[in-house]
This record gives sequence, C-alpha cells and structure tokens, in this order.
Amino acid sequence: MLEEAITMSDFAADKSHPRYQSLLMRHRLELAAKAGMLADSALIAHGRGEAYDYLLGEKTIPSAHDATMEALAHLQNANSAVISLNGNTIALAGMELMKLASLLNIPVEVNIFYRTPERMSALLSHLYKIKDDNDLDVEILGENPDAKIPGLEGPRANCCKNGIYDSDVILVPLEDGDRCEALVAMGKTVLVIDLNPLSRSAKMGSVTIVDELSRVAKNLLTGSMQKIARVPRLDYDNDQHLQAAINHITSTLS
Amino acid sequence: MLEEAITMSDFAADKSHPRYQSLLMRHRLELAAKAGMLADSALIAHGRGEAYDYLLGEKTIPSAHDATMEALAHLQNANSAVISLNGNTIALAGMELMKLASLLNIPVEVNIFYRTPERMSALLSHLYKIKDDNDLDVEILGENPDAKIPGLEGPRANCCKNGIYDSDVILVPLEDGDRCEALVAMGKTVLVIDLNPLSRSAKMGSVTIVDELSRVAKNLLTGSMQKIARVPRLDYDNDQHLQAAINHITSTLS
Repeated sequence: MLEEAITMSDFAADKSHPRYQSLLMRHRLELAAKAGMLADSALIAHGRGEAYDYLLGEKTIPSAHDATMEALAHLQNANSAVISLNGNTIALAGMELMKLASLLNIPVEVNIFYRTPERMSALLSHLYKIKDDNDLDVEILGENPDAKIPGLEGPRANCCKNGIYDSDVILVPLEDGDRCEALVAMGKTVLVIDLNPLSRSAKMGSVTIVDELSRVAKNLLTGSMQKIARVPRLDYDNDQHLQAAINHITSTLS
Repeated sequence: MLEEAITMSDFAADKSHPRYQSLLMRHRLELAAKAGMLADSALIAHGRGEAYDYLLGEKTIPSAHDATMEALAHLQNANSAVISLNGNTIALAGMELMKLASLLNIPVEVNIFYRTPERMSALLSHLYKIKDDNDLDVEILGENPDAKIPGLEGPRANCCKNGIYDSDVILVPLEDGDRCEALVAMGKTVLVIDLNPLSRSAKMGSVTIVDELSRVAKNLLTGSMQKIARVPRLDYDNDQHLQAAINHITSTLS
C-alpha cells in the first residue's frame, strides 16, 4: 500500500534536502498513479500546483495560515461538516485528513471528477486501510451515492445525501471550478484549498487557503488538537486573502 | 502511433475551445506516457509548464518572439548545430522539430535524463516513423552514444560525438538545469526553451525563449521557411528578455 511504500524503501531522498517535502509529495502521487487511484490528468494538475508553490516559496504564508484557522472555525462550528476527498487529495494527505475527520467527528466522502468503479475501489480501500491501521472512528462515504449536486451533469454530480448533499460546511481540497461553483450555489460554506490564487475555485470559495495541501492538513490537525474554541469571523474577507497570496507571488518574481 | 491517435478519434476537444491547444498538448503527453516514452516525472513537469503558460496568457509574448528569431539566427549561422530531443519534447513537438531539422539540414539527437533502453527505443522508433511518413532527410542520433558531456555523471552524460558533443550551437527544449549548465561550460551557444523565466536553465541559456514549446516550434518553422538570412545580434541581452517575461507574468497577476 501507499503509506507503507513511502515509509519503506523506494523513496530515497534525504530529509535534509531543501525540497524534501516537495519530492515526497511527488513520490506519493507517482505511487498512487501506479496503484490506479488517479486520473490521467492528476500528475499534470500536481505539476501546476508545484509551480505555484514554488512561487509562494514552498511555505505557508501568513494570510494562508489565517485562512486555515478560519476554515477550522467553520468546520468546528458546523451543523453538518464533511471533507470531500479526490484522488490527489487522498494520495497527498489521506492519512492527515482522515485523522482530522476523526478529531472533528465528521465524515469524509470520496468524490472524484473522473469516476470509474476501479478508481473508486482503489481509493476507498486505501482509506479503509488508513482507518484500520490507525484505529480511527471515521465514516467513509462515497461508495453508494444517493443524491445529485444540482447544476452538474453525469457521474460527477453524484454524492451522498448524508454527506456532501446535506452538509452546511464542506472542505474541498484541490477541487474543480465547476463543482466548487455548484456547491456554493447550494448555499454551503465552501472551504477551498488551492495553490493558484487566480483559479475559479479559489475565487468561488467562501474561505480559500492558498497553500500546499499537506502543509494545510498538518496546520488543521495541529489547530484542532489545541482544542481552542473558535468562531468564524463575520468580517473575514476572502478576496483580501487571495490578494495577499498574489502579492507574495509578485514579490517572489521581482 | 502517437500522431495517428491524435488525428484520429480519441481527442474530442472542439477546435473552437479557447484552451484547445493546451488540451491538445496535454492529450499528446498522455498518449506518449501510455506509449512508454516518458519518465514518471514528465507529466508533473508538463503541469509546471502549464501553470507558467497560464500566467503568460498562453501566447507568444513579444520578447519571446524576439528570442525565437535570435535563436533561429544562431541555428542558421552555426558551423555544427543540433537539436536535442527528450521525451516531452518529442511528445509535444516531435513532428515540427523534425521538419525544422530537415529545413536547417541539421541532426537531431535523442538525449533523455532518465535513460532506459525501453524509453530510448520508443522515442527513436517514433522519430523514425515521423521521418518516413513525412519523407524527411534528417539524421537521428542518440542510439549509440560515443562521448560524454563533461561534468555530468552516469547515463545522463552520454551523447554522440558528431551530434551534441561537437556542436557549437544546440537547441535544448525543456532541459534540466544541470545539463544546461554543463553544455554552457563546454563553450556552446545554448538555446533554451523554458516556460519558467526563473529556472536555472532559463538563467543559464545563451538565448532563452520563455514560451510554450509547440508555439516556439511553429514560429521557428515559419521563420526558417521565410529563408531570410539573419545574423545573431552582438547586443542581444538574454537577461532583458527574461525580465520582460517576468514583467508580463507580474502584470497578469495584478
């Protein structure tokens, strides 16, 4: 399995390598691709993310940390929150997001853009293995969708009524713009993780975290373990946070 | 074969789609990956390129067109020019670069970072098919390397004496920074095509074209078919061209 392969032998990079974390993420994706978890375009999408992360300096900038804590406040104060997981998300931070779901006592739902039975099966069995290995109490949804996201067509509209459909707060890492827009149109608070501050998902989100997924997952985990009660801010301005990310990238370039 | 598959049925995108060219390039890479032409990291590298191209507006900016014409002048005035081809380059613009080599009467050399017999064989047979199908008079080197690029270790140092090794001018699309640096250290005029103006290859190049490969290949082909005698400019300033690309990206962001 993925986690074992990573901790075992075939990832040879030195932990002191300045780009260790980036190389580890790339390695996880390549393994997930071999395990049949990813669509053809998944590695290309990851490369796009790498380019933006390079421009961000491969670190969590202050505005992203603030957005992460705001997203956590929404997750903690939701009536019915859910974490949506696609192939890249599971490959890059499946373990961390399962632990987060367990701490927050919310379900995860596998929801992929290119849905095939083979990919769904590979992703679900990977999540069940994480659940068993870590003795986590998390409901894993997505296998038997019984509802549709309005405004989307075909298999990509599929979702679970007691998961994504009925949620008031949803965390969508690395989400496609169309689906993000459809979730916002349902009236949900949509928490987006996206390295491109210009993307449609980034602009559509209620709270957009412009940061690399595995760093965000760690920050969310650390934040939720501190058990500090937070309340979402009424004056939180997502556009201001996107602008801060753009400004950071511009300063890297110049 | 790759070209057939592309012109046949399984690329369904509408030519009027605003991102048609970008989707076509992605499709070519996915086919090449399936044909065993690419290393695991190739699709990720392509994704990084996509991100920078998006920031460039997916078009040839004036400074890139100027650098392209400068590169062409070097190719036309060389004593012994060569086009270095790796997996992504062959997948994205193999046909166009073979036609360019034929027009300029120079060889191409397959030179890949992760050299395996299987990948070399897949790439070479694809090039020979392009050569035959288009009745091109081009020498295809790389199969039997008999020289080493000084300063590089292992199989990635391998090259051909009558190709890369003895060349005075070399076109290296999508080249790794280490190899680019080693070629510059050999005293060659190194013509780089790279979408990231901050990359080590971009900074090391004698002439760096910050543009998407298939657009560059078309511009080089068009330029060389016009048969206008050009001479490399003594006052060509590569840093100025890189700065123009950075300025363009910054203006896209703001």
